[in-house]
Amino acid sequence: MERSIVVADSLPHAHAGDPVFDLHVGGKMEIRSTVPLVGKDDLSMAYTPGVARVCEAIAADPTLTRDYTWIPNAVAVVTDGTAVLGLGDIGPAAAMPVMEGKAVLFKQFGGVDAIPICLDTTDVEEIIETVVRLAPSFGGINLEDISAPRCFEIESRLKGLLDIPVFHDDQHGTAVVTMAALFNALKIVNKPIESLRVLILGLGAAGVAVTKMMLASGVTDVIGCDRQGALSTTREDYVSGEMTDIKRWYADNSNPGQRLGSPSDVIEGCDVFIGLSGPGLIEPEALDRMADDAIVFAMANPTPEVMPEEAEPYVRIMATGRSDYPNQINNVLCFPGIFRGALDAGAPQITEEMKLAAAQGIAEVVAEEDLSEDYIIPSVFDRDVAPAVARAVVEESRRAGLARVSEETGTFAAIE
Amino acid sequence: MERSIVVADSLPHAHAGDPVFDLHVGGKMEIRSTVPLVGKDDLSMAYTPGVARVCEAIAADPTLTRDYTWIPNAVAVVTDGTAVLGLGDIGPAAAMPVMEGKAVLFKQFGGVDAIPICLDTTDVEEIIETVVRLAPSFGGINLEDISAPRCFEIESRLKGLLDIPVFHDDQHGTAVVTMAALFNALKIVNKPIESLRVLILGLGAAGVAVTKMMLASGVTDVIGCDRQGALSTTREDYVSGEMTDIKRWYADNSNPGQRLGSPSDVIEGCDVFIGLSGPGLIEPEALDRMADDAIVFAMANPTPEVMPEEAEPYVRIMATGRSDYPNQINNVLCFPGIFRGALDAGAPQITEEMKLAAAQGIAEVVAEEDLSEDYIIPSVFDRDVAPAVARAVVEESRRAGLARVSEETGTFAAIE
Repeated sequence: MERSIVVADSLPHAHAGDPVFDLHVGGKMEIRSTVPLVGKDDLSMAYTPGVARVCEAIAADPTLTRDYTWIPNAVAVVTDGTAVLGLGDIGPAAAMPVMEGKAVLFKQFGGVDAIPICLDTTDVEEIIETVVRLAPSFGGINLEDISAPRCFEIESRLKGLLDIPVFHDDQHGTAVVTMAALFNALKIVNKPIESLRVLILGLGAAGVAVTKMMLASGVTDVIGCDRQGALSTTREDYVSGEMTDIKRWYADNSNPGQRLGSPSDVIEGCDVFIGLSGPGLIEPEALDRMADDAIVFAMANPTPEVMPEEAEPYVRIMATGRSDYPNQINNVLCFPGIFRGALDAGAPQITEEMKLAAAQGIAEVVAEEDLSEDYIIPSVFDRDVAPAVARAVVEESRRAGLARVSEETGTFAAIE
Repeated sequence: MERSIVVADSLPHAHAGDPVFDLHVGGKMEIRSTVPLVGKDDLSMAYTPGVARVCEAIAADPTLTRDYTWIPNAVAVVTDGTAVLGLGDIGPAAAMPVMEGKAVLFKQFGGVDAIPICLDTTDVEEIIETVVRLAPSFGGINLEDISAPRCFEIESRLKGLLDIPVFHDDQHGTAVVTMAALFNALKIVNKPIESLRVLILGLGAAGVAVTKMMLASGVTDVIGCDRQGALSTTREDYVSGEMTDIKRWYADNSNPGQRLGSPSDVIEGCDVFIGLSGPGLIEPEALDRMADDAIVFAMANPTPEVMPEEAEPYVRIMATGRSDYPNQINNVLCFPGIFRGALDAGAPQITEEMKLAAAQGIAEVVAEEDLSEDYIIPSVFDRDVAPAVARAVVEESRRAGLARVSEETGTFAAIE
């Protein structure tokens, strides 16, 4: 049956004629049956009475959900609408177009069935308990556009409570793709990762996650800047105890030189500048004080911290989040493949090592001979990316003993 | 991308070779994109940066979710797995095959995008608060396979808390289709509904709902039987105060003759017998004591209270829940169309009048000249049913002033 019998889809809408709004009429996704439903036999197998035997089999052996339901391929994309794109706290309903966009990308690039869940609560405890109650329906949880610092607690507690992957894409998706770009950039400038000094501007969910992944990858000198400048254990709000927990952790684990000052001050001598904030916080000319072969990832959307044209005189490798410049650092390179791999392996979580494997998987899609200043990261439309990421994640799951799906039989088993 | 890159769908599963299990491999449903995602322009419209303008428009005017998201067509099929088919409390994961079956029928017959939500809680308060938190993502809530009497409180409180349709299909879907069958049966036996004496065996969710709808339709003499026999205000457990609230309500509003005894006792003189219990609770021979032109709907699944062959000597019109006998009373005749109509009208609830309109809509699909003892209810595959039900529901919504979607412009507005 057609979606509406009463109201035609072609009726005028508030923004008719605007191609973006025209595209959004009726939303961007739908449910489809994967089984035939033509005659009585179909109905008696897919529904009553036949389905009862499948339910009984699962009740006797819950691992059979993996074989006979869509659960192992279904991921909830969960938001509370508090940090949607650059728009901030616009609420759950207004977040839906982003969640639907995410869901269709999950399917398109990863074959994952993603379901948008926009929650009518911003309370940390309520979000956690709600997701726990929903969890039997899903093979994974993608947290999305939940504001910092609440997102850190929500994710870490859910990881402890659930035995399916929980992944806050704004943190880890960004971190994985940033690391992939950095791995390839370092091949060009030929610097060892341990030697780098990195400036990170913007310490929200993404900035913190990128920093953690850098440290896990061998970077020893990361300086993080928030609106008050560089974080350090010598900064006034650290000493006075006013600093938030996550920033105290950050100060404790970064900036070994205890540099203080604005981004333009502490950028002196940095090899890498990563912007995850917004425009107007650093002068393009400040990039001139970076080390040789400067690498700049200015990822604020839609307006980067520094525009590529302005940065050009000072940097060797430039990347942004935009599709209209070379080297687009976009989460879609990560989330479909990383979930595809984790779901296929039946991994109970996405570990730091799996994220690193995913980053290497993305980086390796760019062949050594094709690598250049303008091509350090594959296109978001490169069909090789998601399978490469998924394979890397499955391999790491198996290496770590976290793959619950048998390589030989495909059946599901508990981790020994 | 294909659903699995690592594990082929053709791998052996535990019940390979059984057609029902073979059909269920990988589940029965998937998400599909309804927009193109081929090139950069597609991505920049469906996702960032374009989608931001849609989010902003909705944040400014939340009624635009109706135009630009899938929400107005998305229905959560919510269960706690406590009363699944005849299997009882098998838990949320084992309930999933039924919920997926429901979802694909919603799409097939109603064009509704239904999402199975199997909850990891059986606590009434927790179920209610969870559904309230999920509600911004959905245009309607279909409660499913939640055991009585909890289902009554959950539904009634959610109806008070939400401004979208909340519908417990086990109650109202069954009641609507039963009433449709009864309306047509009465045309054949030519009895006015007010004159009927009706025996209802089985007072779970469906039995109570059928009774309520009978009373609302003009039936004045309904007798309900549970395992202890006929309910009455003179029955011992009523007098002693041990009877549950819902059964006290039932006793207060039924059995004006205050008959007591077993189903075989109180069936004496009844015009209609409705079984919503299970086999073995009444002897076929007892049907002989019914009034002339006896109508029997024996709807227990898979084994009816009385098999049609056994009932044949005693009854004029016989219906069951089974597809292999004439007159199959099946909820699929109701839920796709009733939600289609409520969603298209933008109705904030499904009222008693809308349910009655739906029942009339189903009944009227059987043309007067085709009506016969063996054809009182349309086939579940009759493509005219869901649109007829939807139209009846939209018309009743408009009549009652509950249609928030404008008939002329299709735009959404608050009820005045």
